[in-house]
Amino acid sequence: LSSSNPSGDRTAFAARVLDPIRAIVGDRGIITDPGEMRPYMESWRDNWVGRSPLVVQPGSTEELAAVVRVCAETRTPIVPQGGNTGLTGAGQPHEDGSEVVISTSRLNRIREIDIDNDTVTVEAGCILANIQNAARDIGRLFPLSLGAEGTCQIGGNIATNAGGVQVLRYGNMRNLVAGLEVVLADGRIWNGLRGLRKDNAGYDMKQIFIGSEGTLGIVTAAVLKLSPLPRATATALVAVSSPSDAVDLLNRAKGMAGDRIVTFELIQRLCIDIARKHVPDVPDPLRDLYPWYVLVELADQEAGGHLAELLEGILEAGLEAGEMLDGVVAASKAQADSLWRIREGIPEGQKREGVSYKHDVSVPISKVARFLDRTNAALEREFPGIRPFSFGHLGDGNIHYNPIQADGGDTAQWRARLGAVNAIVHDIVVDLGGSISAEHGIGRLRIDELPRYKSAVEMDMMAMLKAAFDPHNIMNPGKILRLPRASAGA
Amino acid sequence: LSSSNPSGDRTAFAARVLDPIRAIVGDRGIITDPGEMRPYMESWRDNWVGRSPLVVQPGSTEELAAVVRVCAETRTPIVPQGGNTGLTGAGQPHEDGSEVVISTSRLNRIREIDIDNDTVTVEAGCILANIQNAARDIGRLFPLSLGAEGTCQIGGNIATNAGGVQVLRYGNMRNLVAGLEVVLADGRIWNGLRGLRKDNAGYDMKQIFIGSEGTLGIVTAAVLKLSPLPRATATALVAVSSPSDAVDLLNRAKGMAGDRIVTFELIQRLCIDIARKHVPDVPDPLRDLYPWYVLVELADQEAGGHLAELLEGILEAGLEAGEMLDGVVAASKAQADSLWRIREGIPEGQKREGVSYKHDVSVPISKVARFLDRTNAALEREFPGIRPFSFGHLGDGNIHYNPIQADGGDTAQWRARLGAVNAIVHDIVVDLGGSISAEHGIGRLRIDELPRYKSAVEMDMMAMLKAAFDPHNIMNPGKILRLPRASAGA
Repeated sequence: LSSSNPSGDRTAFAARVLDPIRAIVGDRGIITDPGEMRPYMESWRDNWVGRSPLVVQPGSTEELAAVVRVCAETRTPIVPQGGNTGLTGAGQPHEDGSEVVISTSRLNRIREIDIDNDTVTVEAGCILANIQNAARDIGRLFPLSLGAEGTCQIGGNIATNAGGVQVLRYGNMRNLVAGLEVVLADGRIWNGLRGLRKDNAGYDMKQIFIGSEGTLGIVTAAVLKLSPLPRATATALVAVSSPSDAVDLLNRAKGMAGDRIVTFELIQRLCIDIARKHVPDVPDPLRDLYPWYVLVELADQEAGGHLAELLEGILEAGLEAGEMLDGVVAASKAQADSLWRIREGIPEGQKREGVSYKHDVSVPISKVARFLDRTNAALEREFPGIRPFSFGHLGDGNIHYNPIQADGGDTAQWRARLGAVNAIVHDIVVDLGGSISAEHGIGRLRIDELPRYKSAVEMDMMAMLKAAFDPHNIMNPGKILRLPRASAGA
Repeated sequence: LSSSNPSGDRTAFAARVLDPIRAIVGDRGIITDPGEMRPYMESWRDNWVGRSPLVVQPGSTEELAAVVRVCAETRTPIVPQGGNTGLTGAGQPHEDGSEVVISTSRLNRIREIDIDNDTVTVEAGCILANIQNAARDIGRLFPLSLGAEGTCQIGGNIATNAGGVQVLRYGNMRNLVAGLEVVLADGRIWNGLRGLRKDNAGYDMKQIFIGSEGTLGIVTAAVLKLSPLPRATATALVAVSSPSDAVDLLNRAKGMAGDRIVTFELIQRLCIDIARKHVPDVPDPLRDLYPWYVLVELADQEAGGHLAELLEGILEAGLEAGEMLDGVVAASKAQADSLWRIREGIPEGQKREGVSYKHDVSVPISKVARFLDRTNAALEREFPGIRPFSFGHLGDGNIHYNPIQADGGDTAQWRARLGAVNAIVHDIVVDLGGSISAEHGIGRLRIDELPRYKSAVEMDMMAMLKAAFDPHNIMNPGKILRLPRASAGA
């Protein structure tokens, strides 16, 4: 729709794509008004704004499949979209207005709860928080938990292999999926909704769609694994002198508490300062100032005070071994919530502090300290005054490494340094065997960096997989991999 | 090598395949003597005996890759082989003698141990037990545990996504792999040896090789995830009146002990009788006879008697609720070992009892009881006198459903019924949403059954993946999928 003859194109699009799709989903499944389409065009962080002639909201898997068939036959590119809370531009159409958005919002039924099997079968458009609540209602935990949980949809969580604050204990989204239903790029429906813990009958096809960001097919439903609901939690904020001491404390905690460790979040002092500066009610519970902190949370099936005793025992041993300097254990749910305010206030505080360079990276846990030392030094050398700002999931080796511009510096000048900062950070990450995207994915944000950090063999393997499952490149083109766009002539 | 001109073929094979491979691996990497090759031709259960002109044992990943390049160029089909302990014929060459066996036995180094990252990097030919021991030496657990652990190689465990007796707690092999090194079908080496807990930078390519039975590439090394070594275990044998009561007890145990539950093995009374009949030292520790038993084991990081108290608490509550009838908790390591003798003696006892029909199936845990009822009734109707014989990993919904011929019946007659029995069992499994191979894989054993139980769409997806990564079908052809064989003319 971006040719020299827009009205002719528009008529052709209506005849070839819009009308057949309307015949499938009806008027209630179609949005073409630019104002109404707007929320589907813009991303959560406002950094991507796309254009599209059409947002489709199918009412069933069968409708969605029929819509994909129309797109496949006409070589119309598709952008699958869930709650639109992604951080890499994977969910927005490109600016050229050539892509149809297929939203899963109306696929929002919980199809089945199997309490003895600890599984729930949900449609892709179910809001994450609703699934958490449905699990809690039957005395189970659905452990995926992240900032956007009130808005994001499970289909998007699956497409991005979402992480969050409990991965250490429960794994990524990939570990929580027992089965999938997927509409393939040719519009066929694959029903892989098996609720099995073990299934080695041939290739495990669901694995290729998890984390593929809608580029290989559209997830329309899933069987999710539930866990027992913990009966006790214990939370502490601990001060440490360095990330490497935090790793020692983590090892001690693993040895003493194993999988009871749900959260082990490393927090740099500056993060607390900036959260407190901009966000109300962020506490600073320790009397003295320390360079680093860890928010630890344990959870267990065993009710009563035993878990708190175990946490206290870990901290006492950690103090004695010199791995930590001070700490406070929450004595109530309210105190625990207050400690969590620190962690939760960081992203908001940072947003208000000026230009920051966000990096969602991971390295082996053994190399987190070295990564921070090397990167902080390299950036300070190149950009004097830049403020190191790091927090994240130490237990997963996943650091949100988000340095902030010098205090009071020129914003436009700092903004122009984004590419140079990225290159320094990501070069060191990959040199240490790490990943340039630990949990957010590639989308458009990292698409041009990826070939710099993956081997040619691996890039080629990804292209082989893409070509096999989406030979005409109509499924979310220009995300993850830059390949020739589909041409509408076929 | 099975043409009408065998000696001419042999000369051509030597010039095109054998000599170039010998130039790569040297004499010590080549076996051509039929007697020496024999152990590589026969399977663990003796049900597959193949033929091959050549067994290659490369000494490094680079050598293995160069060997695969020779095979790729000459379209010579390859059978990758690890410890040769598989149960489905995936590791044996076909009878026509056209395939070269590539053994990973000499790739047996532990390349790196990263204690702070809880990972170990191993080559594919490492024996599973050696990896378990290396982990234990540094105070860690490598949790994969199965009968063949003294012989099987980790590359084979990965290629078959091995299960075993601790899946309930630690997951399948897939959950224990952080990174892979793979030689692709064209002989390129993919180095994906990243030791990361989180990595969403593009498609997770390792997933396609795990469980692919050597049909998409050859795993040459892996980064494995380690766990803390448990400091306490508690073991019990419990009597229940039905599998459905066992499921209730499992739910109770999950609610009270969560992930401390490592093992929850359902055992039918007849299994104990037959183990005791044929295997020495199998105990029968409860005074009365009961129809079903469960072997439960908990493990925990917390040392001391707390875990045993927790197990006793679960059993007391289970008794009170009527979910179990009797039980005994092991008071020592020796008593725990003795309880495990029951479970371990079952396969051996069964082997000596006559014709048995082995099924490695899984269904949702909620449907295990219904599966057993329906299948036992259907088989008894069709084959009067057949003896139901079931045991397995109830916590995973994975039942080894292995009915035995009527006591004293005609062996040949019973043997002829294999296909009919399989069809009855597997039809019911799939009707209940289950899998015809929970942990052993497909190989040759189930290759012709698979299309009966998978949808045409799923079979086609598997073929698409295979065609993308092994377009000439030289990687373990005739395993999992029946596709046109490579022709040597290319």
